[in-house]
Amino acid sequence: MRVINTIHSLRAYINSIREQRYTVGLVPTMGAFHEGHLALMRRSLENGDCTVVSLFVNPTQFGPKEDLEKYPRDFNRDSQLAADFGVHALFAPTASEMYPEGFQTHISLPKIRSRYEGEIRPGHFDGVAAVCAKLFNLVQPQRAYFGQKDYQQLVLIQRMVCDLNFSMEIVPVPTVREPDGLAMSSRNAYLSPEERAVAPRLYLALRQAAEMAEQGEHKSAAIEEQAVHFLAEEPLIKVDYIKVADAEMLEPADLGDRPAVILGAIRIGSTRLIDNILLK
Amino acid sequence: MRVINTIHSLRAYINSIREQRYTVGLVPTMGAFHEGHLALMRRSLENGDCTVVSLFVNPTQFGPKEDLEKYPRDFNRDSQLAADFGVHALFAPTASEMYPEGFQTHISLPKIRSRYEGEIRPGHFDGVAAVCAKLFNLVQPQRAYFGQKDYQQLVLIQRMVCDLNFSMEIVPVPTVREPDGLAMSSRNAYLSPEERAVAPRLYLALRQAAEMAEQGEHKSAAIEEQAVHFLAEEPLIKVDYIKVADAEMLEPADLGDRPAVILGAIRIGSTRLIDNILLK
Repeated sequence: MRVINTIHSLRAYINSIREQRYTVGLVPTMGAFHEGHLALMRRSLENGDCTVVSLFVNPTQFGPKEDLEKYPRDFNRDSQLAADFGVHALFAPTASEMYPEGFQTHISLPKIRSRYEGEIRPGHFDGVAAVCAKLFNLVQPQRAYFGQKDYQQLVLIQRMVCDLNFSMEIVPVPTVREPDGLAMSSRNAYLSPEERAVAPRLYLALRQAAEMAEQGEHKSAAIEEQAVHFLAEEPLIKVDYIKVADAEMLEPADLGDRPAVILGAIRIGSTRLIDNILLK
Repeated sequence: MRVINTIHSLRAYINSIREQRYTVGLVPTMGAFHEGHLALMRRSLENGDCTVVSLFVNPTQFGPKEDLEKYPRDFNRDSQLAADFGVHALFAPTASEMYPEGFQTHISLPKIRSRYEGEIRPGHFDGVAAVCAKLFNLVQPQRAYFGQKDYQQLVLIQRMVCDLNFSMEIVPVPTVREPDGLAMSSRNAYLSPEERAVAPRLYLALRQAAEMAEQGEHKSAAIEEQAVHFLAEEPLIKVDYIKVADAEMLEPADLGDRPAVILGAIRIGSTRLIDNILLK
C-alpha cells in the first residue's frame, strides 16, 4: 500500500493509475477504522477499483465546541488495517496541505444544511461538502463509497455530485452494527461502560418506529412521538431529534408512496450518536 | 463543429475525446461573441486543444435588477462564428438543463466577493463560481481560458481551482480593445453613439493612473483620486470605483514590490463598463 501525504504525490499517483486505465474507488474517512470503514473498503475492492482511502480529520467540519481535539487518532493501526485489507493507497494529508494560506472557497447546500444534523451542527455540512469536492477533484474516482449511517451526509454528497456535475457515482453502503444493534461509529469509543450499555436504545427506538410504519401508521408525528417517549425512559439519554423524512430530499414528510427515512440523534453524556432506518 | 445541448450528449462527447487522448480546452462564454471571445478560442486552438466553447447566459450570475433579459443573444451568428473559427464543439444548454428542480449547491469565495464588482453585484460571483465548477466537471479540460478584462472573475476562478484542487490550468488571455482603447465587451452594444464616444475615457483614466504609478507615485489614494477626477469631468460618466489592489489577492494595497492591478468600473446611462490595467 502506498502512503501518500502530499497533493503533489497524490496527483502523480492518480495520473499513473489512470494511465494504466484502472478504475479508481475513493473511500473518504477520518480514520479510527471500524467494521463500517472496512465495509466501504471491501465494497470498493470487490468492484475491482484501485482503492484510495483518504484519512483526514477535517477541521472545517467540526464546530468550535466539538470534539476535534479528542477525535480518536491512531495512524499506525489504521494504516496497518488498510494495508492488510488490500487497499492500494492511503492519502493522509496535513491540514495545511488541504487548507493553505488564502483558502476561502465555501460550498453550501442550504436546504440540506438547514435541518437535523445541520441545524445542530452549523457549518458541519459546509465543511464536509468542501473537503469531499477537494477529494473528488484530487482522486477523480469513478466511484466514491459512503456509509448509510451518516444518512444526511450521504444525501448531501449525492446532491452536490448531481448539482456540480461530478463525473462519478456515489455508492451507499449499509450501516454495520454491533451484535446488539448499535451502529458502528468512531465516537462509540467515547462511551463509558454504563453509557455503552444503553446506547443500543437508539436503534431499538428506530426499529420500533419502523414497525409502527409497517403496521400502517402514516403520521410522522405519531411515530416520532412514540420513539422519543421510548428513548426518554432512559435517564442517560437526551434526545436531539427523531424525524421521519422523505428519503431523497430529506424534507419532513408523512408516510406515503415515496421512500422515507427515520433519522435519530441522541446524546449520552457528552457523546452524540446518530442512526437511521430506511423505510421501503 | 458539434453543437451540444444536453449534459448527456456532452458527457458522451467528452468521453470519446478523452478516449482518443486529445487534450481539451474550455472557453466559457455567455455568447454575443466579439474579438475578445475569439482571442480565447484562438489561444485554445493554438495550444492544440480540442476546443469546447460553452455558450450559456447564466441566470444565477445576474441580480434581480440586472440585464439578464436584454443581454444580447444571437445563437446563429455565434454558432457560425465559432464553426468558422475551427472550434470543435459548442455546448449551449438550457437553464433547466443546468439547474434542474432541486438544485441547491452554492459556492462562495467570501473575500473576493466582498469587494469591487462583488460589492456592487451581490451574488454575481457566487453564480460565476458555481457555473464554472459545473462546466469544469462536465468538460474536464486540461486548460480553461478566461479574459483579463474580467480581472476579478479571473482571480476568483484561479482561487477556486486552487482551493478545490481542480486538475486543470487557468489560462489568462489579454484584453482585446477597440482602436480607441475601449475594452471589447458584449455590453458595449447597449451604448448610444453619444455614450460610445465617451466610453474610452475609462481606459484613458486607467492608462494615466498606470503612468502615475510608473513615474513613482506609490500611494493608491493619490492614483485613484486623480483617475476618478479625470472621469468625473465627463458628465455622462458615473464612477463606481477606481481601485489599486494586489494583483493576486485583490486586497487594496499601495504600490510596492508585488504585482498590482488598477480596477475600474463606471456607468454610462444604464450601462456598466469595467476595465483594468496590470502594473508590473
